[in-house]
Amino acid sequence: MTFDDIKGMDLAYEEALKGFNEGGVPIGSVLIHKDGTVISRGHNMRVQKNSMTLHAEISCLEATNRVPASITKNCTLYSTLSPCSMCTGSALLFKIPRVVIGENETFMGAEDWLAKNNVEVINLKDARCKDLMDKFIAKHPEIWNEDIGE
Amino acid sequence: MTFDDIKGMDLAYEEALKGFNEGGVPIGSVLIHKDGTVISRGHNMRVQKNSMTLHAEISCLEATNRVPASITKNCTLYSTLSPCSMCTGSALLFKIPRVVIGENETFMGAEDWLAKNNVEVINLKDARCKDLMDKFIAKHPEIWNEDIGE
Repeated sequence: MTFDDIKGMDLAYEEALKGFNEGGVPIGSVLIHKDGTVISRGHNMRVQKNSMTLHAEISCLEATNRVPASITKNCTLYSTLSPCSMCTGSALLFKIPRVVIGENETFMGAEDWLAKNNVEVINLKDARCKDLMDKFIAKHPEIWNEDIGE
Repeated sequence: MTFDDIKGMDLAYEEALKGFNEGGVPIGSVLIHKDGTVISRGHNMRVQKNSMTLHAEISCLEATNRVPASITKNCTLYSTLSPCSMCTGSALLFKIPRVVIGENETFMGAEDWLAKNNVEVINLKDARCKDLMDKFIAKHPEIWNEDIGE
């Protein structure tokens, strides 16, 4: 864990909070190059865009307007929550070497698949991220279940 | 392989052809319920929407306008090409039990991950699907490489 990772998670949390304030699933994601450039940001758009594929990480990658893997392979993907199989698969497809997550208590994604493919996974155990999810899930358990295919 | 699977692949191929005629990566996908209802269709939008996440399967799922897994778990996902790790991950997330592909010679996706999760994978070895990809790749190898994170 580095100072930069905390700054990265701050931005991802800002995105999650935006989502929360829009009435959406409060998960945020940021893609940051190892030179410190913030490449893109995004948050879950299930509610806002009636979308089943715009999870935070997919929204974030979509917001790059199509960067090649020569960029993403030098980036860290931040997400306030452990990435599901779809988002994990996107990180692998684009050869993202590091994934920093806020927490994995609310949901355990496909971290084993990341590890198996030598992607570094760091869990910051960030209480803010979990608190925001707890608040959302208490209000809208059915939307959350839908988001994770339950 | 059933007659329905061939009809499903015909629709996926139609989508791939639409993509080709738009100048895009010619991969198409269709989601069909086991009762025969075509739930949604889509094709790769890398070129058309400057998108790195709208692979055919993701476009197809996006076009459902958010169906729950209670629907997708009774569907077959058709794709003219073996699904990459991201699209495989989306099939797993939404508990899609069957994936029918046109071919896997152009690209071998994460079929092992589907199999490991007890998703039935059927390869129709459809020459039309491969021919269309061959034509596209001969013209635009750089776009194709970008699409698969190379």
